[in-house]
Amino acid sequence: MVKLIIDCFGGDHSPMANIDGALSALASNHDISLILTGDAKIISDYLSGKEYDHSRLEIVDAPEVIGCDEKPTNAIRLKKDSSMIRAIRMLRDDDSIAGMVSTGSTGALVAASLTRIGRVPGVIRPAFCPILPTMTGGLVGVCDSGANMVVTADHLRQFAIMASLYMENVCGVQKPRVALLNVGKEAGKGDDVRQMAYKLLSETPEINFVGNMESRDLLSGDYNVVVADGFSGNVLLKTTEGTAVELMKKVKETIFSRTIYKIGALFMKKMFLDLRQLMNYHNHGGSVLLGTSKVVVKGHGSSNAVAVEKCIDQAYRMHVSSLSAKMEEIILKYEHYDA
Amino acid sequence: MVKLIIDCFGGDHSPMANIDGALSALASNHDISLILTGDAKIISDYLSGKEYDHSRLEIVDAPEVIGCDEKPTNAIRLKKDSSMIRAIRMLRDDDSIAGMVSTGSTGALVAASLTRIGRVPGVIRPAFCPILPTMTGGLVGVCDSGANMVVTADHLRQFAIMASLYMENVCGVQKPRVALLNVGKEAGKGDDVRQMAYKLLSETPEINFVGNMESRDLLSGDYNVVVADGFSGNVLLKTTEGTAVELMKKVKETIFSRTIYKIGALFMKKMFLDLRQLMNYHNHGGSVLLGTSKVVVKGHGSSNAVAVEKCIDQAYRMHVSSLSAKMEEIILKYEHYDA
Repeated sequence: MVKLIIDCFGGDHSPMANIDGALSALASNHDISLILTGDAKIISDYLSGKEYDHSRLEIVDAPEVIGCDEKPTNAIRLKKDSSMIRAIRMLRDDDSIAGMVSTGSTGALVAASLTRIGRVPGVIRPAFCPILPTMTGGLVGVCDSGANMVVTADHLRQFAIMASLYMENVCGVQKPRVALLNVGKEAGKGDDVRQMAYKLLSETPEINFVGNMESRDLLSGDYNVVVADGFSGNVLLKTTEGTAVELMKKVKETIFSRTIYKIGALFMKKMFLDLRQLMNYHNHGGSVLLGTSKVVVKGHGSSNAVAVEKCIDQAYRMHVSSLSAKMEEIILKYEHYDA
Repeated sequence: MVKLIIDCFGGDHSPMANIDGALSALASNHDISLILTGDAKIISDYLSGKEYDHSRLEIVDAPEVIGCDEKPTNAIRLKKDSSMIRAIRMLRDDDSIAGMVSTGSTGALVAASLTRIGRVPGVIRPAFCPILPTMTGGLVGVCDSGANMVVTADHLRQFAIMASLYMENVCGVQKPRVALLNVGKEAGKGDDVRQMAYKLLSETPEINFVGNMESRDLLSGDYNVVVADGFSGNVLLKTTEGTAVELMKKVKETIFSRTIYKIGALFMKKMFLDLRQLMNYHNHGGSVLLGTSKVVVKGHGSSNAVAVEKCIDQAYRMHVSSLSAKMEEIILKYEHYDA
C-alpha cells in the first residue's frame, strides 16, 4: 500500500477538484491510501454522502491556506498550519508516507520541499521538472525550471540524469533524448558553465545526450529532456506557454471580429478543440520535484479533478518505480568536479 | 550626407535582396551614400542596366563569404577578405562612415563588431537588441539577447538606458515601458544579479522602469523594452519565435489534413495572412547593436529587398538621432557599482 498526502487547498478549483480527484484515484487504484490536508470541516462536509473506501482515506485538519501571491519564504515561516506546510511536515516526519500532491503556490511548495525534505544521496540540488506536449504528440521535460537560479555544470549533469530516469521510468519514453538548452546548436556555445556541462553530459553514457538545443526547437518533438538552469528553464517554459496563449487569444479575437471568420470557424471547430487539447497541460499530470527523498508532485493551479487524479497516479508511479534508488545508483558514480 | 556600408553577402536572398534594398534606399533618401561590399564582379553585373545615382554608390571588392554555420571566431580570424569583415574594418578605420547593415551570420557580426569597433564612452558592454511586434500592434525590444552570456546588474542598467533611448529616438515609442526579465513579477525575485538590477533600475529616473516581467507576457503589449542577460534574452526571443512558428505550422498541417478544414480556411484566408503579417519580422527592420561607437544593424537572414531597405533606413535614423551622444550623457552620470 502506497500512502500519499493530498494538499486540498490552494488551486483555482480547490478543494472540490482535489477531493474529487482523490476519490477517483482511490477508486481506480487499490494500492493507494490517501491523507487529505486542509480545513477538516469543509473537507468532511464535501465528502459526506459520497461513496469511497473509508479505510484508505484520512483527513488531517490544517485550516490555513497559502495564497499564490504570498511571498514563499513568509508563507513557509508563518503558515505552519496551512494545508501545504502541514503536508510537507508530515512527509518529512512520517516514514510511512511516500509522497504528496499539491496544486498550491509553486514557489512555496518548491522552497518548503527543498528546505524541509531530504535529498536522494548524492544529489546536490533537487530540480523542478514540468512536462510539455510537443507538436508531434510526444513529451518534453524541462529540468530545472525554477528551483535553482544559479547552477554549475555538475548540477546540470545531475538534472539530466534525474530527468532522463523520470521520463523513462514514469512517462514511458524509451531512451529519452536529452539536450542542453543553449544559444546555438554547436558545441562550444554559451558561457563556461554550458561549455563544461556539454563536456560532462557527453561523458555520461547512462543518458542519451544528443547535444545543444536552441530554445526555438522545444516543441519540435526532437527532444524529451531539456537541461537548463532554473532561470532560463523558467523563461523557456513560460515563453512557450505565453506565446501559445497569446496567439490563440489573438486568433479567437480575430474570429469574433468578422462574420465571415465566424462562418469559417464553424468548419474548423474540431481543429481548434484538438489544438487546445494538444496544448492542454491537464493531460500530462503535474510538474515534479526531482532529487528529493520523497515524491513531490505539483499540479497546475487550474487543475480539475481529472488533472489531480493524474498527479496522484504520477506520484504513485514515481514511488513504485524506485526512481530515487535508480538516481542514487547513477549519480554516486560520478565525482563532483566542482563540489 | 550619411555614409553607410552594406554587406551584400551572407543572407538567404543575398546579394540580390541586399543590392535591390540598397538601390531603393538610395532612391528614397537623398541624404545617404552607400558602399557595397562583396564580390565586385557579381555586384557590378547585377547593377548593370539598373538606374541609380552613381555618385552615391561605391563597390568594394571582398569576395569571401562567411557562412551561417561557420564558427564566428574562426570566420573573423580567417576570412579577412569577406564582405562582412571588410565592412567592419572600413567602419573602424574610416571616420566618414557612420554605420553598416548586414544580413550575414549574427554570431560573426556581433563578435567582430565587439572586438573591432569602439564603444560609446562609459558603455561597459554593447548589447544586441532585436525588436518584436506585440499582439496589440506595438513593439518590444529585447536587450541583451545574445552578445553577453554573463552580466552584472550594472550591465543590465546600461542595457536598459541604451534600449530605452533607442526605442524612443529611433522606433518612435513615447516613454518606453522598461521591464526586467525575471521568474516572477514581485520585487526580490531571481538571483542576486536580478535583485540588484531591480534596485538600480528603480533608481534611474531617465528610464520608465515598470518592474519585473515574466516571460509569458513578452507579447502582451505592456512592455517596450525587456532587459536581460544575453543567454536568457536569447532563450526568450527564440522561444517566442519558435512557438509561433511551430503552432502556425501545426495549424497549416491540420488544415490540409481534412477537406472541411480546407473549406473553413477559405473563409479565414485573410485572417491567416493578417496574422502572418503581424508576426512578420521584415516589417520592423533589423536587430541593432547598442553601445558601439558606430551603428551596426543586423537584418534577418531571410531578409528580402524591402527588409534590407528598412535596415538601411534604421541605420540612418540611428545616426542622425545622435543616439550615441544621448547614451553617453546618461550613462556617464552613473558610477559603476561593480566596475
